[in-house]
Amino acid sequence: MNDYVISLRRKFHQNAELSFKEFQTSKMIARELSEMGLRPMPIAGTGICCDINGKTQGRTVALRADIDALPLEEMSGDQFSSKNKGVMHACGHDAHIAMLLGVARKLSADPSFPGRVRLMFQPAEESPPGGAIEMIREGVMENVDFVLGQHVISTLPAGTIGINFDYGAAISDEFFITITGPGGHGSRPHETSDVVYITSLFIVSAQALISRMTDQTQPAVLTFGTIKAGDRFNIIASKSEISGTVRTYSKEIRDKIRDGLRDMLASLCNLHGAQFSFNYEEGYPALLNDRRVAEVVNQVAAQLAGKDHVVYPPPTMGGEDFSRFLEVAPGAFFRLGVGNVEKGITASQHSPRYRIDESALLLGVNVMTETALRLLLNGIPD
Amino acid sequence: MNDYVISLRRKFHQNAELSFKEFQTSKMIARELSEMGLRPMPIAGTGICCDINGKTQGRTVALRADIDALPLEEMSGDQFSSKNKGVMHACGHDAHIAMLLGVARKLSADPSFPGRVRLMFQPAEESPPGGAIEMIREGVMENVDFVLGQHVISTLPAGTIGINFDYGAAISDEFFITITGPGGHGSRPHETSDVVYITSLFIVSAQALISRMTDQTQPAVLTFGTIKAGDRFNIIASKSEISGTVRTYSKEIRDKIRDGLRDMLASLCNLHGAQFSFNYEEGYPALLNDRRVAEVVNQVAAQLAGKDHVVYPPPTMGGEDFSRFLEVAPGAFFRLGVGNVEKGITASQHSPRYRIDESALLLGVNVMTETALRLLLNGIPD
Amino acid sequence: MNDYVISLRRKFHQNAELSFKEFQTSKMIARELSEMGLRPMPIAGTGICCDINGKTQGRTVALRADIDALPLEEMSGDQFSSKNKGVMHACGHDAHIAMLLGVARKLSADPSFPGRVRLMFQPAEESPPGGAIEMIREGVMENVDFVLGQHVISTLPAGTIGINFDYGAAISDEFFITITGPGGHGSRPHETSDVVYITSLFIVSAQALISRMTDQTQPAVLTFGTIKAGDRFNIIASKSEISGTVRTYSKEIRDKIRDGLRDMLASLCNLHGAQFSFNYEEGYPALLNDRRVAEVVNQVAAQLAGKDHVVYPPPTMGGEDFSRFLEVAPGAFFRLGVGNVEKGITASQHSPRYRIDESALLLGVNVMTETALRLLLNGIPD
Amino acid sequence: MNDYVISLRRKFHQNAELSFKEFQTSKMIARELSEMGLRPMPIAGTGICCDINGKTQGRTVALRADIDALPLEEMSGDQFSSKNKGVMHACGHDAHIAMLLGVARKLSADPSFPGRVRLMFQPAEESPPGGAIEMIREGVMENVDFVLGQHVISTLPAGTIGINFDYGAAISDEFFITITGPGGHGSRPHETSDVVYITSLFIVSAQALISRMTDQTQPAVLTFGTIKAGDRFNIIASKSEISGTVRTYSKEIRDKIRDGLRDMLASLCNLHGAQFSFNYEEGYPALLNDRRVAEVVNQVAAQLAGKDHVVYPPPTMGGEDFSRFLEVAPGAFFRLGVGNVEKGITASQHSPRYRIDESALLLGVNVMTETALRLLLNGIPD
Repeated sequence: MNDYVISLRRKFHQNAELSFKEFQTSKMIARELSEMGLRPMPIAGTGICCDINGKTQGRTVALRADIDALPLEEMSGDQFSSKNKGVMHACGHDAHIAMLLGVARKLSADPSFPGRVRLMFQPAEESPPGGAIEMIREGVMENVDFVLGQHVISTLPAGTIGINFDYGAAISDEFFITITGPGGHGSRPHETSDVVYITSLFIVSAQALISRMTDQTQPAVLTFGTIKAGDRFNIIASKSEISGTVRTYSKEIRDKIRDGLRDMLASLCNLHGAQFSFNYEEGYPALLNDRRVAEVVNQVAAQLAGKDHVVYPPPTMGGEDFSRFLEVAPGAFFRLGVGNVEKGITASQHSPRYRIDESALLLGVNVMTETALRLLLNGIPD
Repeated sequence: MNDYVISLRRKFHQNAELSFKEFQTSKMIARELSEMGLRPMPIAGTGICCDINGKTQGRTVALRADIDALPLEEMSGDQFSSKNKGVMHACGHDAHIAMLLGVARKLSADPSFPGRVRLMFQPAEESPPGGAIEMIREGVMENVDFVLGQHVISTLPAGTIGINFDYGAAISDEFFITITGPGGHGSRPHETSDVVYITSLFIVSAQALISRMTDQTQPAVLTFGTIKAGDRFNIIASKSEISGTVRTYSKEIRDKIRDGLRDMLASLCNLHGAQFSFNYEEGYPALLNDRRVAEVVNQVAAQLAGKDHVVYPPPTMGGEDFSRFLEVAPGAFFRLGVGNVEKGITASQHSPRYRIDESALLLGVNVMTETALRLLLNGIPD
Repeated sequence: MNDYVISLRRKFHQNAELSFKEFQTSKMIARELSEMGLRPMPIAGTGICCDINGKTQGRTVALRADIDALPLEEMSGDQFSSKNKGVMHACGHDAHIAMLLGVARKLSADPSFPGRVRLMFQPAEESPPGGAIEMIREGVMENVDFVLGQHVISTLPAGTIGINFDYGAAISDEFFITITGPGGHGSRPHETSDVVYITSLFIVSAQALISRMTDQTQPAVLTFGTIKAGDRFNIIASKSEISGTVRTYSKEIRDKIRDGLRDMLASLCNLHGAQFSFNYEEGYPALLNDRRVAEVVNQVAAQLAGKDHVVYPPPTMGGEDFSRFLEVAPGAFFRLGVGNVEKGITASQHSPRYRIDESALLLGVNVMTETALRLLLNGIPD
Repeated sequence: MNDYVISLRRKFHQNAELSFKEFQTSKMIARELSEMGLRPMPIAGTGICCDINGKTQGRTVALRADIDALPLEEMSGDQFSSKNKGVMHACGHDAHIAMLLGVARKLSADPSFPGRVRLMFQPAEESPPGGAIEMIREGVMENVDFVLGQHVISTLPAGTIGINFDYGAAISDEFFITITGPGGHGSRPHETSDVVYITSLFIVSAQALISRMTDQTQPAVLTFGTIKAGDRFNIIASKSEISGTVRTYSKEIRDKIRDGLRDMLASLCNLHGAQFSFNYEEGYPALLNDRRVAEVVNQVAAQLAGKDHVVYPPPTMGGEDFSRFLEVAPGAFFRLGVGNVEKGITASQHSPRYRIDESALLLGVNVMTETALRLLLNGIPD
């Protein structure tokens, strides 16, 4: 099994493909599943859905792997580096595919469980609005009782499982603002709307959206990433462009920050005689694990990895569209450590030097398989 | 005389040349002066200095015309538009040259005045540190008692003379700032120095340099012209670049603003764990007319243009390196109206559509000639 | 038991006494305990410590009630209103005393438990640094294995128990700032240090301590409660006084905010030529329940109140010096609902109209008694 | 004459009276004028108007002295200190009265001038809206051709005359703001409108009214003198009171600043859910001398004081209701130096230690008399 998963992972690694362009990846997945005697079905373009039926009627557990790669030129030095120039599995989705195929092989070899396991190979996790939303639209979550997903992560050591009992990833939105006004000569500001000044006061004022207007027991981050304003030192600019991101776990807070940004902008521009445009794009929803399903993962992980190798990292403010599946059915998303300081495997996710300690993958296969089986057999307590 | 000046002005207009590259312009000036029997001398590279000696010993009055053009593609529609692509006399220096040659022709034809008139054709007024400083270094102001200059301006109507009794143009400086700091992911600002926020707070804080820290009876302007910070909406930037200009009449206030900017920057960067560079470049000094010489211009202008056609515009916050000559000898710089709403001559200085009402030029010749003669004859009251 | 507790509560309510002046309260407690055959001992001035020994050796569980009242003129309308003018039990400590005496009566009547229960009647919870610190200094926590406390709260309905599994109350600090500088006439700000402006910019700048400089997954609040600056509209003030509070769960964050405030102040005052004083007073530490002890309370409460009447409110940013006992031994602090909308019992804690639904008190007695017994019998899982 | 004026000044000094309560002062003035054979008439309550007719028909020149004192306890140490406790001539109006009576004695003794001199003793200069407005309403400026006033000032040495050719004192307005909003506990700002924060951001934002929105060649000052907000460090305040002053020379700029303050307030309060009141009280208009009348003063002063003792101080941002007379007729307001460092006479205007060098008063009498006579004889040039 270990060799099978590692060998698959390397194949997928070599064949890294961008979001919604996972054509070869999809074919390779389908071929593997067919060889197991399963019936893979295309979904959401390049996605694959495939059921493994147990021996009796019962619950359905859906297991998800995301399959797309990133627009990066690989610099890992691995022999099995990406053959596709400028595309790289630098977020470990290659491992996710391989592990889910490993799970499929185990379960299809011995389908002595009640109910059904649904394998979901999802395209385009890296590109909002992402592939999950389309899979759900096409019905992948119908009659699903529980849903599980995992993500490799190099900041946890190989052999470790990370679990969150509630939030695991944040709402992650982006916004783009343009402020325009009558510019003019730098020596006569009173005849202009100074968009550089308006921009600055706006960014300073917007801090209160976090510090004064958000319940501090609820995490929320507002970051302005870029400003581009003006062309010459002595000319008052007529245009300023600003972009940024909002992160939080609560839709109410997100809405409050979004509306607050727009209202502050409107107010400042109105006061200073400027105009603005405000484009706010919602990213993925917050990822909220079901506490009871997470507890099942917790027990399985403690047993398979050892109690000391289960950790409970603080929630991150990053984004992940597995959250969409969790909006439809209770489930859990957990982390699989693949870092290894002794082996020099330390590069962070999304780095062109990203590598993983492949010895960890078997644990991922086993935790997911065992958790799925327990959910099929016992469900969760009321 | 009128035809002579207008015809010359058009020749110089067609032959617009950039700062310190006024090679043909310089040759043409020298040729004209030689034809009058004068002895033009090169100075400061492409400048020309030329004395007209009166019949007796006496005072020396220096008259200045600046001779360079701007890097603009002409769109005036005039038949005699610039032949040099991308270079245009859009600030009227062509008229300044022509008028000073007109003065030269009048005075050289009848040198029955005491003392000496020194003609100064100055290169590079448009490019700080400018040509005046080099001419002075080469001795052009030695033994000069008074100095006069004039500037055409399209916001005053043709037939009008504008006079300031004290300040006529401002100190005009520029500054360039870079703020750098450890950036990071947009969701974790507490691990970074957010240079976008620092930039914004700096610009907001700097307003107090004008509103609180400068004597409000002393004009001063601080303008931030550009900001360029960050590359992506969700990444906290590691570099922000800012540029701007400071305008005032007082070196003390300029120094206070410059030092205040640097101290505020240092303070904010220190608080937030960022670094900065601060490059402050002094431009031209403030242009300060001598009240008594300005009064002579005032009387001459009232006589030649009519009392109703002499105006006293508020001082501008623009820059002009005639100020350097005024640091060496008492003198005055006055404005010659060349706008004409009825003729549609309204485009502002430095516009690619800039035009002038040439009928105004004779007045400029005469006011300068007559003022020079009165100064030679009478000097100024104690 | 119900009548006993309610009757006691009313006696203590009538006899409200301020922090460290709970002389009569202390005597009344001692008398009740003596009547049960126990041996109350004075501690920390007006505090009382009293052990109830079980039948066998074993663990020690400490139970705490705080006993002081607030400087408020009662407006509750209750017949048993405070007889002490300007002093009122508006935070329910009267109920805490009565319930702990109820617990004492139950346990002393049937000491068939292993180990020992230590009753801690604590003075001065309302006045930092509070009475807990002195009780601990005098040894009250020696050999204590677990510690329990509860607080009545009118925002939860009677019959309800509120539990936090980790943080239950925040670090709660206060600060007092004075900014002084050379003032002057309102028309000449450039000759002064404008402390009103400095104050304003300081408060605006300080928002970034929360919004940019604190990990947003860690709650933190910075509030400026008061400003008092200046005497006349047309005089630039020479003194500004500011006060405020900092709330968080983490000492590291608290230190960062405190130091940030001081550094920002120093920086702004230095820039603007002003002086300052900064007095920062640490209040109570954050209250951190032991997850396992809280789980015992959770199980007891579910059994006694019914599963639907156990709630898990978000942590508050308020302060409570029970946190000091939790620094010495594992334990839990829980909330007892005493509100009742139908009976019109809705006034908030610390209101002069504060009332409680006394029918809730028996539940408080029982949850505490039963939790103590379970801890004595079973301890907590590893 | 010298003794007469000094002796009078001391009498008035002893009898200092507050604005519109100058009852004894008024009687004393009337008695002096009557003794000269003139016919003083009451005006504007405690004011006095009195004409001195020349030998022939002609122009009318009005001369003004303000007569009220300040609510200050005198600490000058002078033997002739104020007998009225808490009231002091600390702005030198006593000298103004005495000098104008000196002028009256000179002119009434020798009325060999054409036209008429009108003496205007004005009440209540220190208390906007001031006494000038009422005197004008009652007709004091009818048929007046020119108007003159002077003010003693301790920052100029005795023997000196200070002249402004245009603005001599500013528009001087005051404003009072209240911001109210739902306050609350310091740990829950998101449930409140934090008026302390709103106040701070308002004051910081308002700086741009000067630094960005006012033509910097036009003096303008905006000062916030006081803030009073909140009662306790840990409670978010529900009320903030702010006061301040606006100084400028231009009604357009004043209106822009006033409207800008109100619009910013409205905007910020609207954004943050707070309410506000904004009371803006216009003070005196700007004092604008007639250039030609000022030139007459200049010539007289040069002759009487010596050219070196005539100075041209920058305009002040202070207020003076002589400006109202200048709105009706051309005229000039000049300063009379009364300081003397060698004699230790240095205390500033409005100080309880204010003193004047009385040897300067004769010059004030003479400059005013002579200027009045020249205006009667020659008027001013077109």
